[in-house]
Amino acid sequence: MLTRILSAAHHAPSVGFMQPWDFIVIRDAAVRAKVHGNFECASRRAAEVYRGEQRKMYDGLKLAGILDAPLNICVTCDPERAKGSGLGRQTDPSVALYSTVCAVQNLWLAARAESLGVGWVSILDFEQLRLTLGIPHGLTVVAYLCVGYVSEFRPQPDLEEKGWETRGSLACLVHFERWGVRSI
Amino acid sequence: MLTRILSAAHHAPSVGFMQPWDFIVIRDAAVRAKVHGNFECASRRAAEVYRGEQRKMYDGLKLAGILDAPLNICVTCDPERAKGSGLGRQTDPSVALYSTVCAVQNLWLAARAESLGVGWVSILDFEQLRLTLGIPHGLTVVAYLCVGYVSEFRPQPDLEEKGWETRGSLACLVHFERWGVRSI
Repeated sequence: MLTRILSAAHHAPSVGFMQPWDFIVIRDAAVRAKVHGNFECASRRAAEVYRGEQRKMYDGLKLAGILDAPLNICVTCDPERAKGSGLGRQTDPSVALYSTVCAVQNLWLAARAESLGVGWVSILDFEQLRLTLGIPHGLTVVAYLCVGYVSEFRPQPDLEEKGWETRGSLACLVHFERWGVRSI
Repeated sequence: MLTRILSAAHHAPSVGFMQPWDFIVIRDAAVRAKVHGNFECASRRAAEVYRGEQRKMYDGLKLAGILDAPLNICVTCDPERAKGSGLGRQTDPSVALYSTVCAVQNLWLAARAESLGVGWVSILDFEQLRLTLGIPHGLTVVAYLCVGYVSEFRPQPDLEEKGWETRGSLACLVHFERWGVRSI
């Protein structure tokens, strides 16, 4: 199963076929406990911007499953990878990061096809995470994922169900020929 | 068909459920001709770093289908979108961009399921593209996509088939518990 979801990630498209990703597979409880501590500190700091009802709602959200999920996967990007000989990267170096996200989304969908839930944890001190996992400088941590079987797949995103945010109308996000033109 | 692939994109996961994307749908030949001119200039500049055999190979690659594909889609990211109330974005603002790429990859896979080919053009002067499409400052152009029916889906990526780059071994990209640890 792990091989299948990593293979789906590795078959993502990438700019110049550079394949800039690496995957750190974390199962060890001690490592996950350290990352969970990192998340708890970062989340306490992040909570400070919310007040009143919104703060109460924030405190009730499940924002990470680092300890619950038996499998965590950290996905990194090497923006200087020689593969691809720089093709397509001169005009916007961010495309190496974007390619890595294509791999993450492939992994996410492949996992869902295996009835595995995936959560993407962005509330982390990434410098501390780099030290914990021994990630070399020059690489970017793109995603920290929690992967595991879930009790159920709910029909709505959790943040929608809990009332944090609603889904916008697609029609308001589509423009024709030029920004701001709403119909053909 | 367009609605289905845009809807797949709009149902991508996003940090804090912020849905930071917009889609500019371009069919007009004059707009596509302008973007194609942009690509040709950028590609000529990009070609200058390649010499000898690699330059010959570069000149033989198909790097964009802006005119061939009847449908182009420009996907932008609004990193300051109020939706999601900033949830998950404090520790790494790039996650708004990453969410937008999740939408692009969803669109890509949904298009493939409809037998539509998608090409991502990154060799563009993005400031000029912003002017051409009237995209407001503060937004980031994440992807410029060419979408259309293709004569066939080849078994390998084009860049692999043409000898530009090979696929790396997945085993060399997987680490266990910590960077550089190659087995459990």
